[in-house]
Amino acid sequence: MDLGDRVSVSRDGVSYEGILMPTRSDNVVIKLDNGYNVALRRPGCNIQLIAKGRETVLPQKQLSWREGLPQVSILSTGGTIASKVDYRTGAVTSQFTAGEIISAIPDLEEIANYKAFVIYSILSENMMAGYWSELARAVAREIRSGSEGVIVTHGTDTMTYTAAALSFMLETPVPVVLVGSQRSSDRPSSDSSMNAISAATVAVSDIAEVSVVMHEGMSDDYCSIHRGTRVRKMHTSRRDAFKSINQPPIGRVDYLRREIETFGAYRRRGEVELALHEEIEPRCALVKFFPGASSKILDYYVDEGYKGMVIEGTGLGHVASSWIESIRRAVDSGIPVVVTSQCMRGRICDRVYDTGRDMLAAGALEGGDMLAEVALVKLMWALANTSGEEELESVIRRSIAGEISASTPATT
Amino acid sequence: MDLGDRVSVSRDGVSYEGILMPTRSDNVVIKLDNGYNVALRRPGCNIQLIAKGRETVLPQKQLSWREGLPQVSILSTGGTIASKVDYRTGAVTSQFTAGEIISAIPDLEEIANYKAFVIYSILSENMMAGYWSELARAVAREIRSGSEGVIVTHGTDTMTYTAAALSFMLETPVPVVLVGSQRSSDRPSSDSSMNAISAATVAVSDIAEVSVVMHEGMSDDYCSIHRGTRVRKMHTSRRDAFKSINQPPIGRVDYLRREIETFGAYRRRGEVELALHEEIEPRCALVKFFPGASSKILDYYVDEGYKGMVIEGTGLGHVASSWIESIRRAVDSGIPVVVTSQCMRGRICDRVYDTGRDMLAAGALEGGDMLAEVALVKLMWALANTSGEEELESVIRRSIAGEISASTPATT
Repeated sequence: MDLGDRVSVSRDGVSYEGILMPTRSDNVVIKLDNGYNVALRRPGCNIQLIAKGRETVLPQKQLSWREGLPQVSILSTGGTIASKVDYRTGAVTSQFTAGEIISAIPDLEEIANYKAFVIYSILSENMMAGYWSELARAVAREIRSGSEGVIVTHGTDTMTYTAAALSFMLETPVPVVLVGSQRSSDRPSSDSSMNAISAATVAVSDIAEVSVVMHEGMSDDYCSIHRGTRVRKMHTSRRDAFKSINQPPIGRVDYLRREIETFGAYRRRGEVELALHEEIEPRCALVKFFPGASSKILDYYVDEGYKGMVIEGTGLGHVASSWIESIRRAVDSGIPVVVTSQCMRGRICDRVYDTGRDMLAAGALEGGDMLAEVALVKLMWALANTSGEEELESVIRRSIAGEISASTPATT
Repeated sequence: MDLGDRVSVSRDGVSYEGILMPTRSDNVVIKLDNGYNVALRRPGCNIQLIAKGRETVLPQKQLSWREGLPQVSILSTGGTIASKVDYRTGAVTSQFTAGEIISAIPDLEEIANYKAFVIYSILSENMMAGYWSELARAVAREIRSGSEGVIVTHGTDTMTYTAAALSFMLETPVPVVLVGSQRSSDRPSSDSSMNAISAATVAVSDIAEVSVVMHEGMSDDYCSIHRGTRVRKMHTSRRDAFKSINQPPIGRVDYLRREIETFGAYRRRGEVELALHEEIEPRCALVKFFPGASSKILDYYVDEGYKGMVIEGTGLGHVASSWIESIRRAVDSGIPVVVTSQCMRGRICDRVYDTGRDMLAAGALEGGDMLAEVALVKLMWALANTSGEEELESVIRRSIAGEISASTPATT
């Protein structure tokens, strides 16, 4: 019997039918038809073959052009929304093309006509800064070719980093929507269909921003539309893992009605001309401070030739006093140091306590209310798109793509 | 005129009275009596001296013993709850002793009799692992000397790290309560009084755990009682910054009624004998993964002689495939690598996707639903309190102080 075969396993008078899965334990693991796995101690198990496993061949629907519907491009990068369980290894792998996604979710055809391209097919933890540039070029190409919206399917692990990168790289006159799914489409609780349809709804809307569209809550009613620079994956497995931080979402999609409700200002369709600034300096470090952490880690990055650093400090943006000298050394070597907070919510303010004031005196830049991860992507982008310390500082301090709010007024 | 002097400043027909504050700008900055600062452009300002500034001498109430009330020890470590604005530098510094705190908050006397000690007086970002051990010894000494509860006043920046450390170091038969404040006591919106009174209420209660007691919401009605291993500072400045993650708080204090409501199981007074395990191995690293991050950082920590590493991966606990070799190298060198998630909420599961499975094969340990910061403190503690790989792994995987939930059953 091979992994991937359909089997019946009985033990202690109870029997289970499903797909034989690999495991690191000595148990027998079966994937039931409801998508869940069951593990049984091997001794005493009686396993019977029902059918040999085989590669599933997916239908690929022939797409026909529908008059009156806008053209939307779907760029696939891999991830769970485009994945199924690979029964050879038991792991979820990225296998679908964008065309197959449309075939799997026929309702998409009521919203737009689609062009579909596989840009790359990777698990999103293998994403790298250079891929962001390639993706930004592909999005720009689709907009230039007449698409009225672009959907990027993406693994959820690093989707928000990519969303931030595209936000800085693209001035877009049309919606650019990142979407993924937390549960693969072979599972009954999969969110891939609802997320994809909601993403398409945003792609043909008036919201000409880089956004992330994912489940809003526990039920299948709304998807949130998050600004690409303000969103964070806040749960390892829940479908409503994505949350806007430090500002409300741009809006939400009523899934059943396919209607959009917005919660604040956003850039409208056609408000800006398409512009592409896809250069990026990947040699930047994200350093999370903790009690007793050695400042030598900053020296290491300086010595290794890194070009910028983001520190995730504590509270209002602090590190130990022992770090000040290494911050000064980095800044004096021409390496900008941006301070953010591991609190995640709220704003940096290094003017209240001693260590914060010392950090500023050493040349650190306050990251305002930017997320640490977004500050990192912004710094990578700013280093490649500015010349000189002064311009870089000005770009770090001001909002390029909604990632930072104006600092609080002097009277607070 | 000197900084710290009381002045009147008029400009454009409006005048302000307050304390002259230092500033990094060219503005004139005045701290008004309501606690807020106002900044005025210097040209055109007319500044008049009202009174020379001087060091405030704080009243120190003579404490009298009240029959029938339990004995509680207050250990002060510094931080905002014990701080006031230093008008020489304009920054907030830690200056009060525990005795002064009681004088400042007379209602505390209705709850208990207090012994008060300054253990150290630092801003909490300067806390180090060795200080946790010293503090644990001081708490144990107070319990042995007959105190029925111990309150630790602590700066909020790293309070949760200290709470986690004390949770692992102490098996306590009485409540050990960490408390701080987000706004110094010279400000009208200060939370120091309500937090301190709520902490004292918990200190004389039946909840014999290491907990963090801080404002629950925006109003002055409840304080949350967070388990010391499950709490995180989630906002840079708000008074309700502290949140329990991955489980509800132990309970909450109704501030006005001084009553406690609990939300789940907790260890009760006298349930365990006092035990102290204060050894710690501080040479551990916390490494946050991001797209394109170089795995050389892991090699660096191995080469520098670090004894353990916690990785903050993406999603269910992932890093790029390029990191696997360095993880294997660390583990093969006898350096445990614990995987947690930057999602913060939810549970690690490295058995679903390829890279996760590769990490496990390389020897990484899944951090369950532990917070990354707590996993770091636990690893530091476990390295100093176990002998051999097997015992260490067993301690990392099981709950020592409520920091990790039993893994989900095999059928999910």
